[in-house]
Amino acid sequence: MKKLINDPADVVAESLAGFVMAHSDLVQKSPDPELLFVSRVGGAVQGKVGLVSGGGSGHEPLHAGYVGKGMLDAAVPGPVFTSPTPDPILAATKAADGGAGVLHIVKNYTGDVLNFETAAELADMEGIAVATVVVSDDVAVEDSLYTAGRRGVGGTVLLEKIAGAAAESGADLEKVTEVAQKVAANVRSMGVALSACTVPHAGEPSFELPEGEIEIGIGIHGEPGRHRIPMESANGITDRLLDPILEDLALEQGEEVLLFVNGMGGTPSSELYIVYAHARERLEAAGVAVTRTLVGNYITALEMQGCSLTVLRMDPELTQLWDAPVHTPALNWGN
Amino acid sequence: MKKLINDPADVVAESLAGFVMAHSDLVQKSPDPELLFVSRVGGAVQGKVGLVSGGGSGHEPLHAGYVGKGMLDAAVPGPVFTSPTPDPILAATKAADGGAGVLHIVKNYTGDVLNFETAAELADMEGIAVATVVVSDDVAVEDSLYTAGRRGVGGTVLLEKIAGAAAESGADLEKVTEVAQKVAANVRSMGVALSACTVPHAGEPSFELPEGEIEIGIGIHGEPGRHRIPMESANGITDRLLDPILEDLALEQGEEVLLFVNGMGGTPSSELYIVYAHARERLEAAGVAVTRTLVGNYITALEMQGCSLTVLRMDPELTQLWDAPVHTPALNWGN
Repeated sequence: MKKLINDPADVVAESLAGFVMAHSDLVQKSPDPELLFVSRVGGAVQGKVGLVSGGGSGHEPLHAGYVGKGMLDAAVPGPVFTSPTPDPILAATKAADGGAGVLHIVKNYTGDVLNFETAAELADMEGIAVATVVVSDDVAVEDSLYTAGRRGVGGTVLLEKIAGAAAESGADLEKVTEVAQKVAANVRSMGVALSACTVPHAGEPSFELPEGEIEIGIGIHGEPGRHRIPMESANGITDRLLDPILEDLALEQGEEVLLFVNGMGGTPSSELYIVYAHARERLEAAGVAVTRTLVGNYITALEMQGCSLTVLRMDPELTQLWDAPVHTPALNWGN
Repeated sequence: MKKLINDPADVVAESLAGFVMAHSDLVQKSPDPELLFVSRVGGAVQGKVGLVSGGGSGHEPLHAGYVGKGMLDAAVPGPVFTSPTPDPILAATKAADGGAGVLHIVKNYTGDVLNFETAAELADMEGIAVATVVVSDDVAVEDSLYTAGRRGVGGTVLLEKIAGAAAESGADLEKVTEVAQKVAANVRSMGVALSACTVPHAGEPSFELPEGEIEIGIGIHGEPGRHRIPMESANGITDRLLDPILEDLALEQGEEVLLFVNGMGGTPSSELYIVYAHARERLEAAGVAVTRTLVGNYITALEMQGCSLTVLRMDPELTQLWDAPVHTPALNWGN
């Protein structure tokens, strides 16, 4: 294993320390390392719905990279590929509460769902209204190693941006939750791995992927997808990801979408744009307009080579919220 | 070789096609594929000094990712790791000329230097004033496989941003060149490889790096650095990169710097922040203030695992220009 780390046990703490130093204009770290979370500098915004997400580390910039104006109020990083416990989630929820309630954005993994649920109950006992949206956009498999039901992947990034804009605009908890549910209902993803990734404290790859083979439908923890196939062209792989998405999303001619090509951590952006070009041409050939775009490493699996495709059905409300200003370490635009 | 590509011969063209589709609000492609360059949408800005850079592909987002308001006017991508010829550089120079002259920003590789020089002579014959700044910030080696003198690496990104801001503010060619020379004189870099990279048309890794060994002082084409050593901790590696930089830059107590930790393409951002934390602590322990920061994949070597450190001595002028608005596919902030 060759990684730029010191002690594998310290990876999350040391990385987060550097992250907060680098972006101290936007984010701060909780004072208690036992209740570790990252929150907006300056604390909760009074009267605004707070947005909290979190989950296992190793998917950076998700989630801490999305803390800031117009997106998340707090993010709770667990150990690598391991859910955070309810206590730091509760602490982050309290830190994000500006008196208008808090939305929990949870990727559909068993540990995350249970621990956010417990934290929501504890917050409720302390008088904080918590709503929850669970993201399960991965069309690859119905159940998997870590989930009952579909996994939550790339759609989470889009949901955090759009729900964050709704909250920033002053929408109440009911409305922010409704917007988040709309994104969750209209987003689908699927990924591919060209190589495995290595969890630092494990020290060896999570799975074996022989030279010349790829895993279609890979999860963001390297958990199995649909099937292994011999290496193919970028266009062939893109078709294998896009077809199940299109089938599930049932897009019609004339609809508009956001197309998101996400790198898993070890793939050059030049390759992501090759995938983007073909996916976009496919969508346009089907009469679907790609009106918004995101290409880059936004939800990763450590240094895995591969990518995922995410398609979100857009409407004027979602488009306006997507375009709204956002100022976070990993997404930044507008005034 | 597992890459998200179709025909290795089409990698640059297909990737650039996707890039321009994805960022059509900011950039456009030259109509002639034989004179391939990317330029600001809307063409040259009348009365503004034009900035043109370029070089072999495989270092994305450098350079096309930096075309836009407040940075480059045009970028000329060659084949992977191969300099573009003078003809497209000349075409890009003409496209970037708004009547106030053009600055060529050239990384110090023999092919780039020669071809930009030829293009500058041809542009001069057509009545366009061209100034040139050569970036040679890599302290690892004095001469190398592709250079006489030091190689140009991470400092190029910072120079393009800062000179771009000067041009955008209305400075004339002499002043923009002076600012660019100031950056070039005050920036130093050094990199490390944990793995090799594979040029698509070669089909196999550019060099062999055994398990358990790393290459200190690596170039961005995988060309040799100072020495190979057994794998070390992130802090140990960071020291090996930072020490030669500090020695060469001769920083004094009380000075201010921009600290740039760059990923080579295959390294997770979590690892880059571990390196950042230690480098910053080292600088601050030496009485040097890190007043600006950049962390991420900004000048890469395809899917290479590793990173580079860049330190730029700042002053009020450079700080103001760094902070000025920039709107490009890869760097975006301000109004």
